Amino acid sequence: MRLRDIGERKLIDIIRRASWGHPRVEVGVGDDAAAVKNQGRLTVVTSDSLVEGVHFPSGISPEDIGWRAAVASLSDLAAMGAHPSALLFCVLMPASTELEFFRKLFKGIQQAGRVFDAPVVGGDLAEHGTLCISGFAVGYADRVLTRSGAKPGEYIGLTGPVGAASAGLHALGHGESGRWSKLVRTFLRPKARVREGEVLARAGASAAIDVSDGLVTDLRQLARASGVRILLERVPVHGLAREYAEAVGKDPMDFALFGGDDYELVFTYPRKIERKLERALREVGCSMVRVGKIEKGKGVFLKVDDRLKPLPELGYEHFKKRENKR
Amino acid sequence: MRLRDIGERKLIDIIRRASWGHPRVEVGVGDDAAAVKNQGRLTVVTSDSLVEGVHFPSGISPEDIGWRAAVASLSDLAAMGAHPSALLFCVLMPASTELEFFRKLFKGIQQAGRVFDAPVVGGDLAEHGTLCISGFAVGYADRVLTRSGAKPGEYIGLTGPVGAASAGLHALGHGESGRWSKLVRTFLRPKARVREGEVLARAGASAAIDVSDGLVTDLRQLARASGVRILLERVPVHGLAREYAEAVGKDPMDFALFGGDDYELVFTYPRKIERKLERALREVGCSMVRVGKIEKGKGVFLKVDDRLKPLPELGYEHFKKRENKR
Repeated sequence: MRLRDIGERKLIDIIRRASWGHPRVEVGVGDDAAAVKNQGRLTVVTSDSLVEGVHFPSGISPEDIGWRAAVASLSDLAAMGAHPSALLFCVLMPASTELEFFRKLFKGIQQAGRVFDAPVVGGDLAEHGTLCISGFAVGYADRVLTRSGAKPGEYIGLTGPVGAASAGLHALGHGESGRWSKLVRTFLRPKARVREGEVLARAGASAAIDVSDGLVTDLRQLARASGVRILLERVPVHGLAREYAEAVGKDPMDFALFGGDDYELVFTYPRKIERKLERALREVGCSMVRVGKIEKGKGVFLKVDDRLKPLPELGYEHFKKRENKR
Repeated sequence: MRLRDIGERKLIDIIRRASWGHPRVEVGVGDDAAAVKNQGRLTVVTSDSLVEGVHFPSGISPEDIGWRAAVASLSDLAAMGAHPSALLFCVLMPASTELEFFRKLFKGIQQAGRVFDAPVVGGDLAEHGTLCISGFAVGYADRVLTRSGAKPGEYIGLTGPVGAASAGLHALGHGESGRWSKLVRTFLRPKARVREGEVLARAGASAAIDVSDGLVTDLRQLARASGVRILLERVPVHGLAREYAEAVGKDPMDFALFGGDDYELVFTYPRKIERKLERALREVGCSMVRVGKIEKGKGVFLKVDDRLKPLPELGYEHFKKRENKR
């Protein structure tokens, strides 16, 4: 059997088996980041590889690539509720790469590092045919948020509307600019919800994950890890993403439910702390939105016209097609 | 200007500029690892990329590749005097790679992690034409050893003889086995001097670096970072490497001075703590060897027949040729 024939979960299982039950490990392989005990505090670590043409389109500026690579790693820390300590990057690129490209790439990394309080403390460079950036972020927390803490009866919240980044990627790919430049910028310069994550961990949220692969895909991971069913009652679609979707004849829910790269945090919490969470998040400039609730069972369901519809893994177009057949 | 036209130091300068003077950063870009303050302790982080055909020969077993990748990162922690907390690996490999290869690669990583008390807590996998492994190690220390702490008047020590790994690589490349299998194994399964590094940091060594690129190359980095001249008075060549060199008609000093991959630590220390260091290292099973001293000035010099010869960057063969011309 070859790598292309097996899924990511199988590979993660292999890596998980390499991680034996070391007493220092609080959270091991399989969450947004891992957490290791260190003098009463937790050291939180995560790694992410971005390959040109796979994880970002060819042709975007080196500063934007650098920024996105940094945010991808920082967002994993945010989803754990950790504050960043430092960033490191291993960069592979062709020997023919212009020095200026490399300089700008690190400029973008540095810009994100400054905004999210994460100094760049190291890096490594090797020659390789395709541009690839492996980012490594380390942070700390007194308590971490995992994907596995959600319990039936709890609510689900989002740190903000979704769909803007994937609408921006769509606009970018279709040469749209001008009116939609703000959307494109949301894709190119996403924010890591670092302060929001820290607030959630301190205020008592029970689980969290960042919206990197798409709301439904990421919620499915959370549902699976927690052993619960997720009921989405409301999906806050980014206003401009909705406008864009209408202008290009797409369903805005497709961007919101299945588009990734928003890096908002989706989290669960006991009902009784909702007010407290709202207040705490408002203090860091974030208006949370309650989007649903946790039930016993499994899977991710969407409430449409007061009926529950299971959401598929294959995307919204697939969902709509199936719905239309009924 | 393109990447292939510029040296590693220039690239590190670019990365260093991306690392602004953050108050949490104790040691930034340019040492074996970086160190960030965390509640009175230091969090030590390092990254290393290994590319097939560049950093390791094609055809060695996946377990050995995994072990070597883990040790390369752990050795950087050792050179800082840090104890490992955790390891993460980003692996790029062709989609046609056998699943078994991936499994064995992580088995090798795990074996090294167990031996050196470093749980594997994460990893990422992406498709790419050539096998490439980016390793990240995080550790902790109360005090770190940098490359820049050496002072004139101090001694230089080594945690063990050098030359075995590069002799092993030579034997491997020339299809030699049987009698030299122990040398080959030294190359394929190097040790990270983790306990030795911790002992050195605690007992008051002033600087350290691991012998990864070759003794002279690594000493030159230390001399440059500390602003001192290094005088090598004695080079402990690994016994079997010496035998092998003689059997294949090579100069054993070439392996010892310019061969890398030994991962011994070379360190500097005030003369008055020599006994204390020896005793402390003996407790972790290590017999240190004093190899020279630090003077004012710059460069790395070798004492040959009571005369000082500057050691070139280009290797021992070059050094001998120049000597023979005189």
